Amino acid sequence: MSQDLDLDMTNRDPNDLNDHVKVSFDEVLGEPDGIRSMDCVWRNSYKCFNCCKGCCYKLLTLFCGIPLAMCWGCEFAMITFQHVWYITPCMRAYMINCGCLQKFYGTCIQCYLQPIYEAYGYCFNNIRVTKLSG
Amino acid sequence: MSQDLDLDMTNRDPNDLNDHVKVSFDEVLGEPDGIRSMDCVWRNSYKCFNCCKGCCYKLLTLFCGIPLAMCWGCEFAMITFQHVWYITPCMRAYMINCGCLQKFYGTCIQCYLQPIYEAYGYCFNNIRVTKLSG
Amino acid sequence: MSQDLDLDMTNRDPNDLNDHVKVSFDEVLGEPDGIRSMDCVWRNSYKCFNCCKGCCYKLLTLFCGIPLAMCWGCEFAMITFQHVWYITPCMRAYMINCGCLQKFYGTCIQCYLQPIYEAYGYCFNNIRVTKLSG
Repeated sequence: MSQDLDLDMTNRDPNDLNDHVKVSFDEVLGEPDGIRSMDCVWRNSYKCFNCCKGCCYKLLTLFCGIPLAMCWGCEFAMITFQHVWYITPCMRAYMINCGCLQKFYGTCIQCYLQPIYEAYGYCFNNIRVTKLSG
Repeated sequence: MSQDLDLDMTNRDPNDLNDHVKVSFDEVLGEPDGIRSMDCVWRNSYKCFNCCKGCCYKLLTLFCGIPLAMCWGCEFAMITFQHVWYITPCMRAYMINCGCLQKFYGTCIQCYLQPIYEAYGYCFNNIRVTKLSG
Repeated sequence: MSQDLDLDMTNRDPNDLNDHVKVSFDEVLGEPDGIRSMDCVWRNSYKCFNCCKGCCYKLLTLFCGIPLAMCWGCEFAMITFQHVWYITPCMRAYMINCGCLQKFYGTCIQCYLQPIYEAYGYCFNNIRVTKLSG
């Protein structure tokens, strides 16, 4: 029961997952300025569009929505299981080895590049600027 | 018993290891504005999704969780052993040699490159800036 | 006996050598929000993980720790011997020669390159900055 209270029945896409799916009438059909179909045609095509869209979607979800939701539930359970119990520990092992490699590589770089850049820094050792106001 | 007290049963991911695994209903399914399945379909698919996800995950962990935890325990014990008793001492020996090599190499660089860059620095020895207010 | 007092039995990594080896339960496994295994499974996997990790590591160190420590003792004795009695005196001789060479070479460079770069520095000798208050 408590789980059921979590579900927002009005805003069904709080995370804007399908914000790109714009299928309202005026996002699909539009007549430019200067050319017009008859008013009744336009009005009825609007009604038919919405009616068909609604019915078709409702039918499809009625028959396929719940089984698909179940499939996705199982699928995501398996994905979570995989991540929690296999991939993340693997990643941890990999990060431990990487931390070690970083130390090795960092020492290497410090050894070879630091003296070069220290020497290069002598370029700027002797800057003298004379300012004349004319 | 004292070990058991360390385990936080409510927040099971205090280090946010699997924060990227977002599998709640509203992070997987969402109907955009303008199109709606029937309320009962949406509500039941929510229930089925959560039920299947929970059951599937619970079953998987029931059968595979503990053996996997044991495997990872052994695996990480071996990784720790390797790092503590082999890689870190190797690294120490390598860093000692590197420190020495750096001295050798740094002296070399200082000997050959420093005079060149010092000479090059004379470019900037005689900058004269005249400021005109126009 | 006096040597034995130096050893800190509680903090065994005072120099943070193996700080990157993070292998506690909550740094390897974590269940994200919204999905939970059964409490007993999670608790037992925690126990099994720690038990296996501890046993495996203890066994490995029991059999290999002391021989490895002996090997590393010898190894580092040899490295120290090498550095103290051979490499550092070599380095000193090399640095004395290098210091001399640097003076010679530096004079040479100063002789040939300094005038060139000084001439090149006249590029910056006549910078005129006009400040417009607009």
